[in-house]
Amino acid sequence: MSMQIIEAVPNFSEGRRVEVVDAIAAAIQTPGVHLLHRTSDWDHNRSVLTVAGEPEAVLVGLWQAVAVAAQQIDLRQQRGVHPRLGATDVVPLVPIAGISLDECVVLARRLGQRIGDELGLPVYFYEAAATRPDRRNLAAVRAGEYERLVEEIHLPRRQPDCGPTQVGPAGAVIVGARPFLIAFNVFLKTGDVAVAQQIARAVRESSGGLPAVKALGLLVDGQAQVSMNLVDFQVTPPHRVVEAIAAQASAVGVAIDRSELIGLLPQAALLSAAAHALHLPELGSEQVVEMAIRRAMDAGNPEPL
Amino acid sequence: MSMQIIEAVPNFSEGRRVEVVDAIAAAIQTPGVHLLHRTSDWDHNRSVLTVAGEPEAVLVGLWQAVAVAAQQIDLRQQRGVHPRLGATDVVPLVPIAGISLDECVVLARRLGQRIGDELGLPVYFYEAAATRPDRRNLAAVRAGEYERLVEEIHLPRRQPDCGPTQVGPAGAVIVGARPFLIAFNVFLKTGDVAVAQQIARAVRESSGGLPAVKALGLLVDGQAQVSMNLVDFQVTPPHRVVEAIAAQASAVGVAIDRSELIGLLPQAALLSAAAHALHLPELGSEQVVEMAIRRAMDAGNPEPL
Repeated sequence: MSMQIIEAVPNFSEGRRVEVVDAIAAAIQTPGVHLLHRTSDWDHNRSVLTVAGEPEAVLVGLWQAVAVAAQQIDLRQQRGVHPRLGATDVVPLVPIAGISLDECVVLARRLGQRIGDELGLPVYFYEAAATRPDRRNLAAVRAGEYERLVEEIHLPRRQPDCGPTQVGPAGAVIVGARPFLIAFNVFLKTGDVAVAQQIARAVRESSGGLPAVKALGLLVDGQAQVSMNLVDFQVTPPHRVVEAIAAQASAVGVAIDRSELIGLLPQAALLSAAAHALHLPELGSEQVVEMAIRRAMDAGNPEPL
Repeated sequence: MSMQIIEAVPNFSEGRRVEVVDAIAAAIQTPGVHLLHRTSDWDHNRSVLTVAGEPEAVLVGLWQAVAVAAQQIDLRQQRGVHPRLGATDVVPLVPIAGISLDECVVLARRLGQRIGDELGLPVYFYEAAATRPDRRNLAAVRAGEYERLVEEIHLPRRQPDCGPTQVGPAGAVIVGARPFLIAFNVFLKTGDVAVAQQIARAVRESSGGLPAVKALGLLVDGQAQVSMNLVDFQVTPPHRVVEAIAAQASAVGVAIDRSELIGLLPQAALLSAAAHALHLPELGSEQVVEMAIRRAMDAGNPEPL
């Protein structure tokens, strides 16, 4: 793919009224924006849309979706078990192809500015788009949720990055940029959760393991599972995590049963896993038939696809 | 990719006159046909073009290329170390996406019929498109080359499948269909060619190894190499061959150094290698971000890309 592609995973604080989520999903699908996945949860009272496309189209779709959500969702009424700061709660932009994380930060800032200026909503930037270190972490930005923000927005530490210093019924929007996150679980051939917990400690960054790996040991349907978020697969790709888990498990006489991928895997992670299995460190997408054909087609077609 | 894609790898008996190969390459690139690779060899006096696209477009391009080659190449003069039966010597069609080998056989037969009828060239079908068991093998069809065919074409066993029972200066064309072939070599951490030869015997089908694997042990730049053709990667994918070689090598105290891919790898082989490394047996292209985006784009765009 020679064009620029970003993904956005906006979270909306509505998981019960299907017609509202339909309206948001319709608004986001402006030409060039492709809805890849949609999920709503009643208890969380929250919906997550996964969209992708060329950056300018995705920004237009997101802006329209934020506008509809602000009209339709009233945080004074909304209740759910998931914490939230606004009708559109979080909008992460994720680089997929032909674009860097830094370029996504620029896009996030532009989107936030437009939401603040034209929709009159307070906006906070987080993760790679954060303007202050204490706003990098999403949970910190959302601390106290909508209700506390109403009381505290006039405090200097809660000054929005864009938009009015004033909270309406639609609350605030948290906009940011982050690398692609791979949610990846490995089931072990044991029912002993202690083994999974021990391996999780060994492989996760927070206890001295692999960088950009978050891991927990769980018991799922009676089977031990190492449940992970790989927050930067360029730093630690999934095949390296599998290798580390296999070695740790083998040391205590346990084998890997199978893995589970929640959501999607970027093509680069696929290529690096195959390269590892085949001892072909240089394997690139130009050596894959369908990808080479696609590139030839794109090159021969000056229209945006 | 939701559309049908085939690859064709026509071999032309001209590797010296660049202007002739240029004319053939220009003729083949009709709209929708993408030239992926081109190689010419002076000693072989032969050129190989790799093209891909939607089936109908590829058939038009091939027919035009065969017409140009028949006009420009005179087998009565042509000499080279590579055996050949005609100006366009061999035309294999290869299923890539959304199409079966059997459907490629139908396409090969249609192409051969049109070459016979409209260009007046004798045509033989080989491999999956063969009409008789003794024509499946390319070397058997080409035995004695152009010169003997001129003398023998009137014999019943050499009756062409299409076209006249008569050989002109452009010779005959061999048209067929076959699965994608992966040319894959594994270098060992040893300079002892006997180890590579022993492993080649263990893994190749002809001596009781893995099905659809051809293998030779070679010494390349002082390093032992298992050189392979994987003639049906759906039967034996490359990661399974690597695993078998690693086990064989390990048994004699040798390790794999690295592999080498000659040409391209189909996406399905990439997916299965990654699935193996990640313990994700069900991994499909719909779980790869860029592929999911591409599918969404194709679905939203009724124009052929």
